[in-house]
Amino acid sequence: MYELGVVYRNIRRPDSDLAARLGAFGTATVHEAMGRIGLMKPYMRPIYAGAQASGTAVTVLLHPGDNWMLHVVAEQIRPGDIVVAAITADCTDGYFGDLLATSFKARGAHGLVIDAGVRDVRVLTSMAFPVWSKVISAKGTVKATLGSVNIPVVCAGALVTPGDVIVADDDGVVVVPAALAQKALEAAAAREANEGEKRAKLAAAVLGLDMYNMREPLQKAGLKYID
Amino acid sequence: MYELGVVYRNIRRPDSDLAARLGAFGTATVHEAMGRIGLMKPYMRPIYAGAQASGTAVTVLLHPGDNWMLHVVAEQIRPGDIVVAAITADCTDGYFGDLLATSFKARGAHGLVIDAGVRDVRVLTSMAFPVWSKVISAKGTVKATLGSVNIPVVCAGALVTPGDVIVADDDGVVVVPAALAQKALEAAAAREANEGEKRAKLAAAVLGLDMYNMREPLQKAGLKYID
Amino acid sequence: MYELGVVYRNIRRPDSDLAARLGAFGTATVHEAMGRIGLMKPYMRPIYAGAQASGTAVTVLLHPGDNWMLHVVAEQIRPGDIVVAAITADCTDGYFGDLLATSFKARGAHGLVIDAGVRDVRVLTSMAFPVWSKVISAKGTVKATLGSVNIPVVCAGALVTPGDVIVADDDGVVVVPAALAQKALEAAAAREANEGEKRAKLAAAVLGLDMYNMREPLQKAGLKYID
Amino acid sequence: MYELGVVYRNIRRPDSDLAARLGAFGTATVHEAMGRIGLMKPYMRPIYAGAQASGTAVTVLLHPGDNWMLHVVAEQIRPGDIVVAAITADCTDGYFGDLLATSFKARGAHGLVIDAGVRDVRVLTSMAFPVWSKVISAKGTVKATLGSVNIPVVCAGALVTPGDVIVADDDGVVVVPAALAQKALEAAAAREANEGEKRAKLAAAVLGLDMYNMREPLQKAGLKYID
Amino acid sequence: MYELGVVYRNIRRPDSDLAARLGAFGTATVHEAMGRIGLMKPYMRPIYAGAQASGTAVTVLLHPGDNWMLHVVAEQIRPGDIVVAAITADCTDGYFGDLLATSFKARGAHGLVIDAGVRDVRVLTSMAFPVWSKVISAKGTVKATLGSVNIPVVCAGALVTPGDVIVADDDGVVVVPAALAQKALEAAAAREANEGEKRAKLAAAVLGLDMYNMREPLQKAGLKYID
Amino acid sequence: MYELGVVYRNIRRPDSDLAARLGAFGTATVHEAMGRIGLMKPYMRPIYAGAQASGTAVTVLLHPGDNWMLHVVAEQIRPGDIVVAAITADCTDGYFGDLLATSFKARGAHGLVIDAGVRDVRVLTSMAFPVWSKVISAKGTVKATLGSVNIPVVCAGALVTPGDVIVADDDGVVVVPAALAQKALEAAAAREANEGEKRAKLAAAVLGLDMYNMREPLQKAGLKYID
Repeated sequence: MYELGVVYRNIRRPDSDLAARLGAFGTATVHEAMGRIGLMKPYMRPIYAGAQASGTAVTVLLHPGDNWMLHVVAEQIRPGDIVVAAITADCTDGYFGDLLATSFKARGAHGLVIDAGVRDVRVLTSMAFPVWSKVISAKGTVKATLGSVNIPVVCAGALVTPGDVIVADDDGVVVVPAALAQKALEAAAAREANEGEKRAKLAAAVLGLDMYNMREPLQKAGLKYID
Repeated sequence: MYELGVVYRNIRRPDSDLAARLGAFGTATVHEAMGRIGLMKPYMRPIYAGAQASGTAVTVLLHPGDNWMLHVVAEQIRPGDIVVAAITADCTDGYFGDLLATSFKARGAHGLVIDAGVRDVRVLTSMAFPVWSKVISAKGTVKATLGSVNIPVVCAGALVTPGDVIVADDDGVVVVPAALAQKALEAAAAREANEGEKRAKLAAAVLGLDMYNMREPLQKAGLKYID
Repeated sequence: MYELGVVYRNIRRPDSDLAARLGAFGTATVHEAMGRIGLMKPYMRPIYAGAQASGTAVTVLLHPGDNWMLHVVAEQIRPGDIVVAAITADCTDGYFGDLLATSFKARGAHGLVIDAGVRDVRVLTSMAFPVWSKVISAKGTVKATLGSVNIPVVCAGALVTPGDVIVADDDGVVVVPAALAQKALEAAAAREANEGEKRAKLAAAVLGLDMYNMREPLQKAGLKYID
Repeated sequence: MYELGVVYRNIRRPDSDLAARLGAFGTATVHEAMGRIGLMKPYMRPIYAGAQASGTAVTVLLHPGDNWMLHVVAEQIRPGDIVVAAITADCTDGYFGDLLATSFKARGAHGLVIDAGVRDVRVLTSMAFPVWSKVISAKGTVKATLGSVNIPVVCAGALVTPGDVIVADDDGVVVVPAALAQKALEAAAAREANEGEKRAKLAAAVLGLDMYNMREPLQKAGLKYID
Repeated sequence: MYELGVVYRNIRRPDSDLAARLGAFGTATVHEAMGRIGLMKPYMRPIYAGAQASGTAVTVLLHPGDNWMLHVVAEQIRPGDIVVAAITADCTDGYFGDLLATSFKARGAHGLVIDAGVRDVRVLTSMAFPVWSKVISAKGTVKATLGSVNIPVVCAGALVTPGDVIVADDDGVVVVPAALAQKALEAAAAREANEGEKRAKLAAAVLGLDMYNMREPLQKAGLKYID
Repeated sequence: MYELGVVYRNIRRPDSDLAARLGAFGTATVHEAMGRIGLMKPYMRPIYAGAQASGTAVTVLLHPGDNWMLHVVAEQIRPGDIVVAAITADCTDGYFGDLLATSFKARGAHGLVIDAGVRDVRVLTSMAFPVWSKVISAKGTVKATLGSVNIPVVCAGALVTPGDVIVADDDGVVVVPAALAQKALEAAAAREANEGEKRAKLAAAVLGLDMYNMREPLQKAGLKYID
């Protein structure tokens, strides 16, 4: 977070299967499995409904209005990565468009998460290249000032260390530190294990009040029913 | 609005047909029929394009980051109701997901209006369970503090009393007090009665200036044309 | 910008073909061709995905909560125009709905750009009448105070002079002054000329670093690679 | 909330002493005494630091960009009142300036709470006429459309019924329904009774952990200390 | 607005006395005198309470995160000027601090209006150098990309042409085109002429309803009083 | 960042003198010395003008609407510390008031930085206890859910590790990692060394263009002067 003008070429990536399996659970389940931490701010939205991606974070720190380092990070992408782009200050410029998307896709990137703007969203949608961004904007950028690649960054309120697992879908973007990925996976699996049964009960009009045994704690907390 | 920890079980619901008939007019017409009052803030958006719902309000007041009372309100839902959820302070957490949606739907709810966040939007969309919310967020909540059910609440800038009629669509969410519902229905019907004729004229390139006889008042107000 | 209560009837429109040809390039390319100026704020969003329009600006200045002048501007529309509506202060009211859209369309308008709210978006979408707005709101307006038509206005942060070319799509709204339209067209064409070749290279995993010869300037700027 | 064009002349005001005594406790204490409800959104800020006021609410509902009804409400002010102004949609115009402040002050108003803009703040400050508003803006308004006076309104997220007690200071604006004012006063007094003792302990570096006996519930909740 | 990399050295400045005399009226009066147009967005706030300035606009267009052109504009300042700085996209960086303020002041600038951030506000306050800005931020900027000086710019929603008169105080920032300055001055003077008398009446508890003869138009509009 | 329910009691604090010396330079200089990184978002504002503080970070992670852990962190404060409070989701509640301030002050805290709301600001101001917060709000909180103390947190967009140096003033809040504090101090000192000389030159109307030798690079970049 505190070095400018550096590119770390060798980052530790977790087992590639891990990201895919975490991704299958979706952000809501993974976020719960993490103890409700690691979620980016909800202003991060996919550029098209139904976008879904998971992968390993390669990070890039950019300056306002300057996308030079996106070309630098492209070289560091390995198949299965998701690029996470942070800006040193709030900026709504469109840092990323169809040419960079073509390049990122060719390198094997699963998507982009950027705390700024993106453009060419119609083309990106037709390419099925998912992007989560703060805004959509046709505004281009200059290429003048160095940032860094593969340093820890804060993106949309979440700390992202290179090699973290990123899970993203319609509900947002969750960051899972590499060291916690296996544990999060297990917690997510445990959480989902009995969801089917719960869903069936609820669909049969059983109340959560009964299914989760909430009546007693509610009464204890003082809840009063008035007819 | 001023009681915490209470659940009113018996609320007066207007004739069930009323909500359906108001809903058929859509929010823009109903809002005009109400004299342009009763609209929630425009940050309330449906989770999918084309969402439409109308029904009777059952209300719930929640605390920031705490969705306990959503389970309590589920029991109070009757077929045709729309749950209106207010929070005691601004909060973007995802209070509601697919399990609660399954429960609400099984109870007969027509939808949810919540001045906070919602998650699992892809599943909710596939369930065709409409939600109007301030934000979409994977962030879950705790179950620790009592709120209330079926007290008057302020939701997204609008006062909602249990039993009010809620009309919601792509244009927003309108609240029609039960006592005014019949009158609003008539005003909406009157308003729409000659819309077809108007639309036909405008489609034939007749100007609103002429159709509404605006030229004279505009001139009187001092409008000048310059060639 | 400084006259109220006036309607300029004769504005200079650029060659009608110009707008169509600029529109074909899309906002991102046109904005780059303009030297990265003339873009409206990115809060301006189309009411449906995939909306695209280009045309000649006819402008209207409105007051908060008052859409009277939209009827006045309707008369000034010629086929191929886009109405650009500015408000004298921030306002989220729904100034424009399906009746006005029917009228505008019948007059030949290609779309509406409004720094406020719009309603009846489902109908507008089914009419394929594109609108770019700050917000969607069912809230209607009064007809009480004069504004102006075809004066220069500031709309969503961009100066719009009647007769300017407007290009709008999913990425935003760009304003091209009539006097610069031909030059912008050429610059856009030049810019796109070799995009196909670039895209092919990038798709073949050639890096932008190499294609754009960035390695040397990056090194000169001090970029360090760390293994 | 649902009538336009009406002025209620006779509203029930609580005992005038009640507002003064509640005001002495300040908003934070009164809000706690109310069970943490009734607070306006925190975007409501006083126009000068140290502003303090309490009084009885007379309410007014205004349209965007139209301050006509502020002249109507002036006549309804009695000494000790606070005018609470709501707008039918979001608006930042400066509805109120030094002339209206002179009038309101002469009628005995203790202040103004407005969910919109105010101007002439330097003069208002020198008059020591306190205003809580969403924004400061030199932008004036028209006088064209009827609103209402002394109907229930939603102002900055809070329901205000004419005759409610308003308490406002640097921390915000709290609404106390007339019927709850006496009870709130007692709760506030009880709350403050032992604050002096608490403050003395804390100033002597006694920890809240011990003073409030939090160590056991924290341990029970699972808090772990790591050296 | 459409040229980058140019500095216009010779701009037409109105009679220097004009700005001073307009400034004496304050923004609210000048804005009314202008027919309620020309006000910047209300997010523009002075860095200290009581700040007041008027002068001739010299303009500068900057890029996000790049303050190079502030040094270029410094040379174009003549005594009595106010620098108006626009950015090509939203940016919150602190473009301006005590060193530039020292320079601007030495050149005779009356203040700065910038649609971005400013820093060193404590020093600027002690220097009594007034700045109106969108935000305060310690974040510095680079010096890499050319903008322009003394071209028309859109700053905080208002068009500013070099040589326009700027009036700024606690209520905001108003732009008066040079060609309209004399007329605005007269309108402002006329407006204020009888304000003293009005204020005296209102202070004596005469109602605006009577002083402005509003009772009849209100009744005509349908206002009903209910006892 | 990923543990809930833990309190780290032993954190490494840098030499106490370091924070004081960094603080003397102010946030703008320290932020530049850091290479323009480590600044919190500019929405973080001091509760009174002229607030200044520097110290060692003790961190706390809180849940929306729940300030329980502020009592836990109080015990971990050592003289010279600044408490940095992050919330797991956006929240505007008033987590901190005069009682906690009394406690924090008695423990030797130099201030509080909180990405949420604060209340009792008048008392806090009279205590000269500086707080930087997102908002001011009278809204209180519950004490129900565990967070953590002295884990790394993201506060207002900046990563804060316990033991980091915090520098805060009117311009914002800067985070200096303990390991970089000495180097940042030297860079800040070097930066300020010749500021006096520069200021004198600029005050004598020497232009930055000449003092910084910018004329040649500007010309090289293509800047054109037009008479």
